[in-house]
Amino acid sequence: MNMAGSVTIREVALRDGLQSEKGFVPTDKKLALVEALHQAGVKYIETTSFVSPKAIPQLSDATELMARVKREGLCHEVMVPNIKGAARAIEAGANRLVVFVSATDAHNRANVGHSVTESMSGFSDIFLLAAKEKVPAAGVIAVAFGCPYQGVVPREDVLEIAKRFISLGADRLSLGDTTGMANPARIRQTVTFFREKLPDTPLCLHLHNNRGIAMANLYAGYLAGVTIFDTSLGGIGGCPNVPQAAGNLATEDVVFMFQEMGVETGIDLPALISAARTLENILGRPLPGQVMKSGAI
Amino acid sequence: MNMAGSVTIREVALRDGLQSEKGFVPTDKKLALVEALHQAGVKYIETTSFVSPKAIPQLSDATELMARVKREGLCHEVMVPNIKGAARAIEAGANRLVVFVSATDAHNRANVGHSVTESMSGFSDIFLLAAKEKVPAAGVIAVAFGCPYQGVVPREDVLEIAKRFISLGADRLSLGDTTGMANPARIRQTVTFFREKLPDTPLCLHLHNNRGIAMANLYAGYLAGVTIFDTSLGGIGGCPNVPQAAGNLATEDVVFMFQEMGVETGIDLPALISAARTLENILGRPLPGQVMKSGAI
Repeated sequence: MNMAGSVTIREVALRDGLQSEKGFVPTDKKLALVEALHQAGVKYIETTSFVSPKAIPQLSDATELMARVKREGLCHEVMVPNIKGAARAIEAGANRLVVFVSATDAHNRANVGHSVTESMSGFSDIFLLAAKEKVPAAGVIAVAFGCPYQGVVPREDVLEIAKRFISLGADRLSLGDTTGMANPARIRQTVTFFREKLPDTPLCLHLHNNRGIAMANLYAGYLAGVTIFDTSLGGIGGCPNVPQAAGNLATEDVVFMFQEMGVETGIDLPALISAARTLENILGRPLPGQVMKSGAI
Repeated sequence: MNMAGSVTIREVALRDGLQSEKGFVPTDKKLALVEALHQAGVKYIETTSFVSPKAIPQLSDATELMARVKREGLCHEVMVPNIKGAARAIEAGANRLVVFVSATDAHNRANVGHSVTESMSGFSDIFLLAAKEKVPAAGVIAVAFGCPYQGVVPREDVLEIAKRFISLGADRLSLGDTTGMANPARIRQTVTFFREKLPDTPLCLHLHNNRGIAMANLYAGYLAGVTIFDTSLGGIGGCPNVPQAAGNLATEDVVFMFQEMGVETGIDLPALISAARTLENILGRPLPGQVMKSGAI
């Protein structure tokens, strides 16, 4: 069992979270949210995505947001679907690009209309541009622990995609349980496998809570050696297709757990809860996070 | 790490769950719920509590419920606060008594108006009667991982109460995280300590989800060797004092996790989800459980 003394939290509420909201959150409010996260000590933020504003109008202010966003002490990671988005993100000052593909053809086709191989082919230009501009780029593999169309995904298949990402130049890999199909045993096995096969590449877990067990999955990932976790302030986002089900793990719940375990996150829990309340006020509805309701201890 | 091939689920929705509901659920509907749980393969049910109907009117039908409840293949465990309740429960045919005390004086006083020692003194008669009538009796220790009034509870204090329960004749111990103050590290340490000090007494965990991490706590308990878990259909109950926060872990979410991990529960997940829908119809509101929304895989 791994017992890392510190972990890194990647805050995804601004991208994964707000993308799932019905309405567009004004840029000023997004900036206030970034400020509140910064005040709490959050350092890594998936700030936006340079996608088509038609596809995701919630993130249509990507350029303006990146132009006005606080920079000091923050790493703004930006999702990009193609070379055009990558060029815009780099131009906008992204600190890291995030490139994503699904682990299965069926899910990737449903998501972006291409096979996995087709998507990966298109990534060469993105990573070449990123390298030229000296912007690091990470690879994300969605439905890595199970696909709603194809079922269990062999970890060897996920590894092949991961190796391809690394050969392109990815400086970090993220495995997504995009529809909440993972379980602690599979997380442990897959993480152990990845750490054995790709020991030099930092591994991140992005776990959705559709079936209520994501916190156990996260803990299993921690025990297996993962030290980077995607979480979402207030627990927003994560599951646009099953709106009544839970989405992401709430950042404040995860930080609470690690803090209570004596694992350093660098994040101040009361300030983080305050940020979650800011988000709650912005969205005008109660959020799924629990610690913001029960309070820290 | 323990990797037990099977676990026992104790269903607490009828007692812990319904006790937190505003209205009284008619006995017929409770009987339908027991039937649905039985159909799903649930064997251990905390069916009711023989408390004052003034204190908990939701359970005021304890005698009638026990008289009419299905018996075959079911172990009806019944909470009793005192010798009077114990006598009524035994008379009503309880298969096991459940006797509870808090780990701290402050919480026990807030809950039942006595110090821990005062409560424990009153239990002698209960266990004597249970032994005489050949009804097994279990001991429950609430706020065992943290008390909202006294903070962290030393595990040595919890052990002393546990030893007292065993000396009285308890055939099983349950540790309750009554207000969601546990974390996986503390669960692991406490369970390991208990298994070392009291290796012959079966240990059950009753974990509330007030701060969103109960599923990780449950998994940590499983890894440390616990094989009996209290869960509540649909995730109802658990936290009357913080109504907007989560309560118990949903039985169907826990069963889903174990099933996906290859750990036998003896419970049929689709039938259990059906039971959760029965409960949802009875209560007339969406329940916190996630698997009943996202579906099994």
